Amino acid sequence: MTDSRNQSEGSTEHSGLIEQLLAIGTALSSTHDLGALLTLILAKSREITCSDAGSVYLVDRSGQEPLLWFKVAQNFSQPAASFKEFAMPMTPKSLAGYVALTGESLNIPDAYNLSAGVPYQLDRSFDRSISYRTRSVLVLPMQNQEGEMIGVLQLINRKRKPDAVITADNALDVTQPYLDWEKRVLQSLASQAAICIERNQLQESIEHLFEGFVKASVQIIEARDPCTSGHSERVADLTVRLSQEANAVTVGKLQPIHFNDRQIQEIRYAALLHDFGKVGVPEAILGKQKKLFPMQLEVVRNRFALAQRTLEMECAQSKFRHLIEHSSHLATHDASEGCSHCQGLKTLDEQLEQAIAQLDRYWTLLVETNEPRILAEEPLIQLRELAQYTYRDIDGQLKPLLSPEEMMQLMVARGTLTLAERDAIQSHVTHTYEFLKRIPWTKQLQNVPAIAYRHHEKLDGSGYPLGLKQPDIPIQSQMMAIADIYDALTAGDRPYKRSLSIPTALKILRQEAAQFKLNHDLVELFEQRQIFAVLGHAVAEAT
Amino acid sequence: MTDSRNQSEGSTEHSGLIEQLLAIGTALSSTHDLGALLTLILAKSREITCSDAGSVYLVDRSGQEPLLWFKVAQNFSQPAASFKEFAMPMTPKSLAGYVALTGESLNIPDAYNLSAGVPYQLDRSFDRSISYRTRSVLVLPMQNQEGEMIGVLQLINRKRKPDAVITADNALDVTQPYLDWEKRVLQSLASQAAICIERNQLQESIEHLFEGFVKASVQIIEARDPCTSGHSERVADLTVRLSQEANAVTVGKLQPIHFNDRQIQEIRYAALLHDFGKVGVPEAILGKQKKLFPMQLEVVRNRFALAQRTLEMECAQSKFRHLIEHSSHLATHDASEGCSHCQGLKTLDEQLEQAIAQLDRYWTLLVETNEPRILAEEPLIQLRELAQYTYRDIDGQLKPLLSPEEMMQLMVARGTLTLAERDAIQSHVTHTYEFLKRIPWTKQLQNVPAIAYRHHEKLDGSGYPLGLKQPDIPIQSQMMAIADIYDALTAGDRPYKRSLSIPTALKILRQEAAQFKLNHDLVELFEQRQIFAVLGHAVAEAT
Repeated sequence: MTDSRNQSEGSTEHSGLIEQLLAIGTALSSTHDLGALLTLILAKSREITCSDAGSVYLVDRSGQEPLLWFKVAQNFSQPAASFKEFAMPMTPKSLAGYVALTGESLNIPDAYNLSAGVPYQLDRSFDRSISYRTRSVLVLPMQNQEGEMIGVLQLINRKRKPDAVITADNALDVTQPYLDWEKRVLQSLASQAAICIERNQLQESIEHLFEGFVKASVQIIEARDPCTSGHSERVADLTVRLSQEANAVTVGKLQPIHFNDRQIQEIRYAALLHDFGKVGVPEAILGKQKKLFPMQLEVVRNRFALAQRTLEMECAQSKFRHLIEHSSHLATHDASEGCSHCQGLKTLDEQLEQAIAQLDRYWTLLVETNEPRILAEEPLIQLRELAQYTYRDIDGQLKPLLSPEEMMQLMVARGTLTLAERDAIQSHVTHTYEFLKRIPWTKQLQNVPAIAYRHHEKLDGSGYPLGLKQPDIPIQSQMMAIADIYDALTAGDRPYKRSLSIPTALKILRQEAAQFKLNHDLVELFEQRQIFAVLGHAVAEAT
Repeated sequence: MTDSRNQSEGSTEHSGLIEQLLAIGTALSSTHDLGALLTLILAKSREITCSDAGSVYLVDRSGQEPLLWFKVAQNFSQPAASFKEFAMPMTPKSLAGYVALTGESLNIPDAYNLSAGVPYQLDRSFDRSISYRTRSVLVLPMQNQEGEMIGVLQLINRKRKPDAVITADNALDVTQPYLDWEKRVLQSLASQAAICIERNQLQESIEHLFEGFVKASVQIIEARDPCTSGHSERVADLTVRLSQEANAVTVGKLQPIHFNDRQIQEIRYAALLHDFGKVGVPEAILGKQKKLFPMQLEVVRNRFALAQRTLEMECAQSKFRHLIEHSSHLATHDASEGCSHCQGLKTLDEQLEQAIAQLDRYWTLLVETNEPRILAEEPLIQLRELAQYTYRDIDGQLKPLLSPEEMMQLMVARGTLTLAERDAIQSHVTHTYEFLKRIPWTKQLQNVPAIAYRHHEKLDGSGYPLGLKQPDIPIQSQMMAIADIYDALTAGDRPYKRSLSIPTALKILRQEAAQFKLNHDLVELFEQRQIFAVLGHAVAEAT
């Protein structure tokens, strides 16, 4: 344990500076935005040293050659001097480059009178462009605990009086060299800043990683379903935009709504992941294009052939029996018109022909009703008739030509999905919820599962899976419901539905709101503020 | 701009303390481990104030009632006093609880002589248990920038001399009250610590979120394939264990291997995600149990029935024609043994019977060869014969009873997958790579895609998808290959393979190493260090 007590015992009168430095440390640690952090470290360093100007550089090792980014510049005397960040190669010819490469700090009394033999020099063109004169300069490396170079802090023109304005003429009078203790204290502060910058970058990079992983997973899962490519990201964009617009509403029922940044982020993740559970729905159902699956139709086609062949066989057998039964006539057969025996055979052939024609009609009916069109009354009656049709299988048993399961599929009134298949698809909401619940969300994102779970609920309780009514449906889910329906209507990638125009989609949303399925005020906002423009949907299209 | 210059101008002699405080700030900011951070803030606070003892408490709002966790305790005089962290309700009866609830700091000259009427009191039982005497106490709230309470810092017994050892008897002589400036400086340090703690927690929680999301996604994707539940996590556990053991090797070819913590993490994510691309492989192929898909078998069964019925029809027709052709005989028919006309009919019936018997044999052959057994010579010859078999369809055309596609499937020599299906499954490696490449990995995890991409390569170049040889296969991928194969052999959830015993699996790994498919030294290490024990596989089983 070092005894710093004797040193600090008498420090009461200096606790001002100490507390100021500690407050800077606290501020540095608590700043989560890189730009704000750099501005802060520069401003505070200038304040402590009474520097007129300064700048911060960051090392960039992402490319082939390391670069030094000129990130922030401040100048008390020339507050209006324009500044735009730029990158420069890391060479020892500039002051900042020399410090970044060597790790040495520079305390230069006059930048226009450098010691002989130093590799660096000051680029005076900037001074000339703003009629300025750089004199004393303190350039400090910003290194992390491992000594890795993060950036460079450069302070310019330590002044005798803080409010002095420096010009090209008065610089020698109003400025003075930096003191050694300032260099030491600032070096310590620069190290702390380096660590905070690095932590910010680390934090940002892992947030970026999470975001990227979520998006890539959503995309890879959506790729299983040809109908929904890009749907989740579009719903996220629409819902975020709608919540931002709701924030801005100052009158009416939406007025109390206010989402902060973290809530918007929460909404975004809920929307992005709302269909994640579709990974649990079989591909065959997701991509089902007709009422019977292709292989089912192939099975049925073979069964029709078997039925026809059975008719043909039975006809041939009947004709054979007919000949046996009429064998006495056969010898006296004269093939005249009135031969009853020939007439009998002819009747059997005609009956077969009719029976095959009937089978053919049934097949045509089946192929037609297999399409995902809305089922009319007439084909429905015929289907019921077909349901009664039996054939004799090779095992001698009479069997229905279509199984009850196949019949149920063909009788689907609209679309292609049976109730069970519709349930399987709707169960994705529950799958999504169960998946999201298992994820250890941060406190900031803890409502993601609850919001996503309720995006198929309707205000009147007619939604699924919980059948909740308006008071129990989070407003975020009510927003997502609108975005989800809008995108499903306009996306144009459903297997049997064409995409609708924007006005038609909006009309349907209004109808749903009028029927108290969707939130009326939100639908109105969606339309008025043209939320759909975030998808690049032309505004003109909607009017 | 505040003028702190005048204040700081003369601070040269106090820069020691200032630099010490700044160094503490830097250390706080750069500590990524919560335990280390708490230990550090307590040690440094004690050092500055010459405190004999102290403790740190953290607020826990995760449950119904907020709790105060007693996290760290230090005592110079009683270094051996045992300490175990515990939680207590947040009430104003304890000093720390009072500070956490009110946000007020307490500077108590003697904890045994508290002012009248204060709600808190010191629990003296701990002092008694270690023959100690708590006298001066400084209790400070640790709050973030928003004033949220993160924890409490408690310093005990400010000493006159840093090396004094306090007992129950000498406390009044060797301790003194805390000074006001100390309180202010320490308060500032406590705030900075609070922010660092919060950032650490935030960092940890988002890392935890990423980890949780990755695991949950892997599980939901594995759920599509009944054969691989838990496989990815087991491969991750095995590979991590193998790399840790490789680190410990000090002789031989594995000696140069050293993975640091971030590389182990990289290996873990690569292993966890190595099969993620399986989401792009159709479920039907992943779960294929026989050579023909169930619906295909149903189609073929119907086609066999149609072929039989066609034979029956053709027989009936032949018999009818036979009667017509022999009509003159029919009249004189005497049904005696030698009647050639009856013999002709009988021959037709017998031919039909034989043809149906032949079809039945083919069906039996088909059902047998449809199983995922290794195909023997005899059934293969019969299959080739069956391939030639045709039947007359209802359109009058002669057609093969089995399509070339069906024939190819049945002729698969081992397992159930055709070459195309095997390719589809193997393409998961490329899918995985394409997925992983799109993710913005942090610098620390940048090799995850490359490691995962090469886990099916073999040292002799016979692997896929790149056919790389040993020098081009990262050692991490070589490890993962061993873990992947070991788990596939022992998991026992493949549709047609039983799980192998550990000795058998190890024997196969050794054979693969002997054939220069797997890294011999790593396989040896895997066996010798019983890496498989991480899966709970009994060591006894392996011997």
